[in-house]
Amino acid sequence: MALEQLLKRFFAHDTIALAKIISLVENRAPGYQEILDALYSRTGGAYRIGITGPPGAGKSSLIDKLTPLYRAEAKRVAILACDPTSPFTGGALLGDRIRMLDLLGDEGVYIRSMATRGSLGGLAKAAQEVALVLDAFGFDIIFLETIGVGQVEVDIVQAADTVVLVLVPQSGDVVQAMKAGLMEIADVFCVNKADQGEADVAVRNLQTMLSLAMRDWIPPIVKTVATANQGLEQLKEAIEKHRVFLGEAGLQARRRERLRAFLRQLIEDELRTSLWDGEGLKHLESQVERVWAKELSPHQAARELLKAAARR
Amino acid sequence: MALEQLLKRFFAHDTIALAKIISLVENRAPGYQEILDALYSRTGGAYRIGITGPPGAGKSSLIDKLTPLYRAEAKRVAILACDPTSPFTGGALLGDRIRMLDLLGDEGVYIRSMATRGSLGGLAKAAQEVALVLDAFGFDIIFLETIGVGQVEVDIVQAADTVVLVLVPQSGDVVQAMKAGLMEIADVFCVNKADQGEADVAVRNLQTMLSLAMRDWIPPIVKTVATANQGLEQLKEAIEKHRVFLGEAGLQARRRERLRAFLRQLIEDELRTSLWDGEGLKHLESQVERVWAKELSPHQAARELLKAAARR
Repeated sequence: MALEQLLKRFFAHDTIALAKIISLVENRAPGYQEILDALYSRTGGAYRIGITGPPGAGKSSLIDKLTPLYRAEAKRVAILACDPTSPFTGGALLGDRIRMLDLLGDEGVYIRSMATRGSLGGLAKAAQEVALVLDAFGFDIIFLETIGVGQVEVDIVQAADTVVLVLVPQSGDVVQAMKAGLMEIADVFCVNKADQGEADVAVRNLQTMLSLAMRDWIPPIVKTVATANQGLEQLKEAIEKHRVFLGEAGLQARRRERLRAFLRQLIEDELRTSLWDGEGLKHLESQVERVWAKELSPHQAARELLKAAARR
Repeated sequence: MALEQLLKRFFAHDTIALAKIISLVENRAPGYQEILDALYSRTGGAYRIGITGPPGAGKSSLIDKLTPLYRAEAKRVAILACDPTSPFTGGALLGDRIRMLDLLGDEGVYIRSMATRGSLGGLAKAAQEVALVLDAFGFDIIFLETIGVGQVEVDIVQAADTVVLVLVPQSGDVVQAMKAGLMEIADVFCVNKADQGEADVAVRNLQTMLSLAMRDWIPPIVKTVATANQGLEQLKEAIEKHRVFLGEAGLQARRRERLRAFLRQLIEDELRTSLWDGEGLKHLESQVERVWAKELSPHQAARELLKAAARR
């Protein structure tokens, strides 16, 4: 299908065209940049909610149960699940995506999974781009779901307007989330599986931790039991409270910051790609040999390589 | 102190000069590249052992107990502990460094902690550079200790000749480590605190997981109780077994690969720095405005910025 035709169908709200365009973008297929260029002016209408947390915290179940609440308000919901699973497991842990059966068949809900291809940084960028596609298609709410363990996930959820960090009542998770840098980007905390373990202790620990951080917005902590449909209304309210706190100016500032970071990333990636083309790699190899032979230090070799790249 | 004088004292095995040089490198102080250039030819004698794993797994205690075993062979040991703690905690979790009291006062042991400064990627690079300094100083064994939660830690321990992944008998850790991409880079597995929980179950789970990966080297799994000095000899043997498996050719191949990755990183960092100088940032801001106003798409803006950078 010609790109023009594809875009026409996309703008006519054809879900098949949407799926094709997402695949083009995910695979960096020829024409994907033109497509993103063409749809960019239609973006900005969607509210992005990032849902992150350790494996098994119940992120998917929470989104399953939140979605109908937004559907009841006639809002269209897209769910983008990103799994930067290590190549070792081959993405098998993404199996939990085979759920959400209740949501299937609803035209106003679109679900898409993305797994790692190539570098991890690439996933964060591709997720941003797919979010733009979903936004331009006309979804009102975009859930960005990702396992919270490292920098890539932080990058992914930072592309959200409101970030929800999902934990279970175990202090180990809190430490892990803290280490991964997730505590400071969370706008709302959700202690899921609150019927198990010591949920109130977890909430108190979180409160203590949060009181140490000086922030204008004190993130609310919501207890939920997703599987029993408990606390979901409160979670939705907490998300909306954060949106109200941000206000129009705060939201725009956050989105502008996100745009700035995205632009920087696009440029750095492009530059990296051009640096390591055929000739660049050959040059690198010969410098590796010289450093290996102790003719040069690594920094000397790097400086020489940069000079050569500038001359190209 | 002049750099020349400092280097002279460094090569005369003055520990104060060592500490000063590490600080220069860590802080990117003027002259640090010259110093690294000057000492590079003396590197290559040290064997690097990476020790990683989740917080609380007992990495520090293990190193505490392994060190005397190497000291008994008259080997000089350096311990470089890297903590990419989030700015939220202000590095407070590094408190466990106030241990190793047994090792203090031993001239043949040097301990140094590094915490995050600025970007996380910076820590991996600085750790590599400090490892070169310790190598050139004449240490036989360098322990690279880091909390295993994300890509940065993976980068840090990948600069090791043998990587030990420390876990405790809880399956949650195994999943986390897998997610963080640590399973495939571990050469030796250590199930510490083997007197607690179901250590044998953990070992069996690991064995199952490892049997799925097709590798020449089947990583041994060693049970330890660091605090009770149990299993340490076996852990040391497992590390040496891996060294023997690598052989001279394998070790050199691994180190050459490491050098290649390090060179690439040096160049990319340098390029990034030059891209975002004063003028580059000004240009970025004006493009952010235009994309914000929907005059351009992000990709169009990135392409224009790159063209401008090439002209500079």
